[in-house]
Amino acid sequence: MAAAAELSHLDAGGHAVMVDVSAKPATVRQATARGRVTMRPETLALILSGGVPKGDVLAVSRIAGIMAAKKTADLVPLCHPLPLTSVRVELAAAADGAGVEIAAHVGTTGQTGVEMEALTAVSVAALTLYDMCKAVDRDMTIEAICLVRKTGGRSGPYERAGAGALSKQTE
Amino acid sequence: MAAAAELSHLDAGGHAVMVDVSAKPATVRQATARGRVTMRPETLALILSGGVPKGDVLAVSRIAGIMAAKKTADLVPLCHPLPLTSVRVELAAAADGAGVEIAAHVGTTGQTGVEMEALTAVSVAALTLYDMCKAVDRDMTIEAICLVRKTGGRSGPYERAGAGALSKQTE
Amino acid sequence: MAAAAELSHLDAGGHAVMVDVSAKPATVRQATARGRVTMRPETLALILSGGVPKGDVLAVSRIAGIMAAKKTADLVPLCHPLPLTSVRVELAAAADGAGVEIAAHVGTTGQTGVEMEALTAVSVAALTLYDMCKAVDRDMTIEAICLVRKTGGRSGPYERAGAGALSKQTE
Amino acid sequence: MAAAAELSHLDAGGHAVMVDVSAKPATVRQATARGRVTMRPETLALILSGGVPKGDVLAVSRIAGIMAAKKTADLVPLCHPLPLTSVRVELAAAADGAGVEIAAHVGTTGQTGVEMEALTAVSVAALTLYDMCKAVDRDMTIEAICLVRKTGGRSGPYERAGAGALSKQTE
Amino acid sequence: MAAAAELSHLDAGGHAVMVDVSAKPATVRQATARGRVTMRPETLALILSGGVPKGDVLAVSRIAGIMAAKKTADLVPLCHPLPLTSVRVELAAAADGAGVEIAAHVGTTGQTGVEMEALTAVSVAALTLYDMCKAVDRDMTIEAICLVRKTGGRSGPYERAGAGALSKQTE
Amino acid sequence: MAAAAELSHLDAGGHAVMVDVSAKPATVRQATARGRVTMRPETLALILSGGVPKGDVLAVSRIAGIMAAKKTADLVPLCHPLPLTSVRVELAAAADGAGVEIAAHVGTTGQTGVEMEALTAVSVAALTLYDMCKAVDRDMTIEAICLVRKTGGRSGPYERAGAGALSKQTE
Repeated sequence: MAAAAELSHLDAGGHAVMVDVSAKPATVRQATARGRVTMRPETLALILSGGVPKGDVLAVSRIAGIMAAKKTADLVPLCHPLPLTSVRVELAAAADGAGVEIAAHVGTTGQTGVEMEALTAVSVAALTLYDMCKAVDRDMTIEAICLVRKTGGRSGPYERAGAGALSKQTE
Repeated sequence: MAAAAELSHLDAGGHAVMVDVSAKPATVRQATARGRVTMRPETLALILSGGVPKGDVLAVSRIAGIMAAKKTADLVPLCHPLPLTSVRVELAAAADGAGVEIAAHVGTTGQTGVEMEALTAVSVAALTLYDMCKAVDRDMTIEAICLVRKTGGRSGPYERAGAGALSKQTE
Repeated sequence: MAAAAELSHLDAGGHAVMVDVSAKPATVRQATARGRVTMRPETLALILSGGVPKGDVLAVSRIAGIMAAKKTADLVPLCHPLPLTSVRVELAAAADGAGVEIAAHVGTTGQTGVEMEALTAVSVAALTLYDMCKAVDRDMTIEAICLVRKTGGRSGPYERAGAGALSKQTE
Repeated sequence: MAAAAELSHLDAGGHAVMVDVSAKPATVRQATARGRVTMRPETLALILSGGVPKGDVLAVSRIAGIMAAKKTADLVPLCHPLPLTSVRVELAAAADGAGVEIAAHVGTTGQTGVEMEALTAVSVAALTLYDMCKAVDRDMTIEAICLVRKTGGRSGPYERAGAGALSKQTE
Repeated sequence: MAAAAELSHLDAGGHAVMVDVSAKPATVRQATARGRVTMRPETLALILSGGVPKGDVLAVSRIAGIMAAKKTADLVPLCHPLPLTSVRVELAAAADGAGVEIAAHVGTTGQTGVEMEALTAVSVAALTLYDMCKAVDRDMTIEAICLVRKTGGRSGPYERAGAGALSKQTE
Repeated sequence: MAAAAELSHLDAGGHAVMVDVSAKPATVRQATARGRVTMRPETLALILSGGVPKGDVLAVSRIAGIMAAKKTADLVPLCHPLPLTSVRVELAAAADGAGVEIAAHVGTTGQTGVEMEALTAVSVAALTLYDMCKAVDRDMTIEAICLVRKTGGRSGPYERAGAGALSKQTE
């Protein structure tokens, strides 16, 4: 009962709803999410290799992440559709040489936040990276996708404890 | 050079292509992927709580995962569109009480595999679970999304080392 | 001639247009639509049966309806895309035991109304219910989809004559 | 328990699945569905009016229905994606002058049937017709959407009792 | 370096971003684009032929163009999603009898312009016309797709030099 | 009458249909289309400039073209949905230095051809290129989109008269 009230996407009867945000003002909102794809060092080396015009694996993943942010409301059933004002996706070799770190920054002027858009951008960029490298490394793992910070909205700013910058930006 | 050849989604010049699978026979192919959403025990308790007709959070996430499997080629730029023959998504409380485990099983009769469909189903089920619970726990993390096994296709079966069954199936 | 003018989605020459709403103010708008799926009592009994964790048929239909509301502009050629602020879909056993009643409530703050979003949500929830039960009952019929009421916008409120509440809400 | 087994989109535990059709042969399958939009005679007269290049309302609805057939698996959560081989949508003034009748014929060579594609085409053609005429008649009702017949597939042919031809084809 | 700055969809490092428009005011914006499909006179004659209820080829292309305008942000990776307030697509036989001219007019109240929506509507209307006539004329060519004018937004109005009206509007 | 018969997407009454291809065998089919974006030499120089990690404009356009090929049946109303087996998009500076040439090669094993998929890939790659460069050159024009060749299918191979290779491949 209390449970139903606390999980905002369930109504008093426990049924799924797209919650009513019509009473909220449209304000500037931003969110940053991050994650990583863990892989063998040789796989990372291939991605970064000077032998290929470097960047296409990362460039394709970046584009996939940006486009996915725009599809969030189509993927996540109870998400509100929002007119996004900015999307930026960064990919960087991890400092320990064992993977690629991904961050996504999304903004809107809207009645609800863009956490899900940022998390979706990271997730799909990671899936795309997996797809392009799976012929050489099926053991890659997508790890640690989380919200780093958000600003705007009634609930106030959020900053994840211990969240630092991306370790190194390769391109 | 070698790098470009090894990463199958890049042509000899390092440019992105959707690789030609026209010479491959259409065979039965299956893939299983898994992942987990780590959360506070109280958050898991809310999801499982007897106070609500339990299952809507899990039911919505399951549906979102199934529908996402069908959108994989729309999300992952170089994925081949495939007519899927089965999709099953399972969600279960983790044995340690600190999260929800997710598994997706996908099948097709096609010229290429369904690893990406299984991984996409897990990812979107996880995102949906995050969305429905974020009002009570913004610190949740999506973890350990990986391919567990695949069968069918020229490259032969794959089984991830150390992959066990889902710890417990709650619904 | 007059005809062309009266049907708002046709221009003076009778050709389809997405009508210009740029001069309309963005106001709060809501719409409710309803419909029903008629079926054999045994089929309804199966859906409601205590033998299965009841609700998955209804839960899946509810989610499908909510997601469809967000796709309305993609389905109905001359509909304006709108950022929805709320979507709620209810399913209930009909009082006469011969079917399931469906209602959808949609809201936006926009320059045009959400009647089509509410009607689309009901239609797709009904299609989904048909899909999940068709193995046992191909004779089901989707009936009486109509607009119940709308508020907001220049044309003023609308209330369908004789529209009552849903007969009984089962979940 | 038995219930779960009978409703094919629920597994033994009552959870939603996209059922496995991989063991079914790919055969030629066809389905026809129908429905009607009931309206005031004046509304029908406007649609058919000689004063406008007649047909645009019906032409737009027809196109919307055809395109919707292709989106069925995107709308109905547990539907299998299928490569359709034909889609035809007919709209005709009802013999009683009080509405428009709609029929959709869909074909595929696949492992599962196209009933849902035919029903979806009818539903979206009806919604589009409603959308284009709602400025003059908000009381229109979408009625009697049902499967008329299907052929192909293991369950054999189906013909709805009492289903006749469309009453009159206006364009 | 300077190059990266000038191409607005690349950040300082040359990477793709959806540029931040959150500081821009939402203003009324309009754009008109045009293009043509060049074909044999016999092909045009078939399209315009009195023997068929004229207009279905043009009607279908018009609808396809309108619907495509709504999908622009889904097709063009770095485009912002926008709630369009009007879309109009015109098709007309070219004055020289060797093709069909297409124009699209799109409006929004938003933080960024609708040039891409207008260009996308023209492109997809042209592709649809090609699709419907390709059985009789595979040599058709899509030509001269360009922005004719735009208004609204910080960069001020734009009018293409030498852009005149559509030569003749056939329907 | 004859006209209606000759335009394959219209039935005998002149109405739009998705033509029935169920009697056609599934064979290997390929199609190549091309087009160009004409621009000022300075704009091309910016795209190719050594000052930016060259290629991102071309890389994003290439990805957009590949993804659009998969959406063809969603954009072009009477196109059949097809499981594509290969998509390759090439972009190259024109020999005369006044634009970018685009070619798309698409393959399938299916019951109908992939001309529309190849043409759609070229069109959307061109639109994306326009989008990324429009801040510096609004006068760019999309030109000469046409089918170059196709193979497979009952109508036999087609080769456009005078079609040569892309003038120079820049990346």
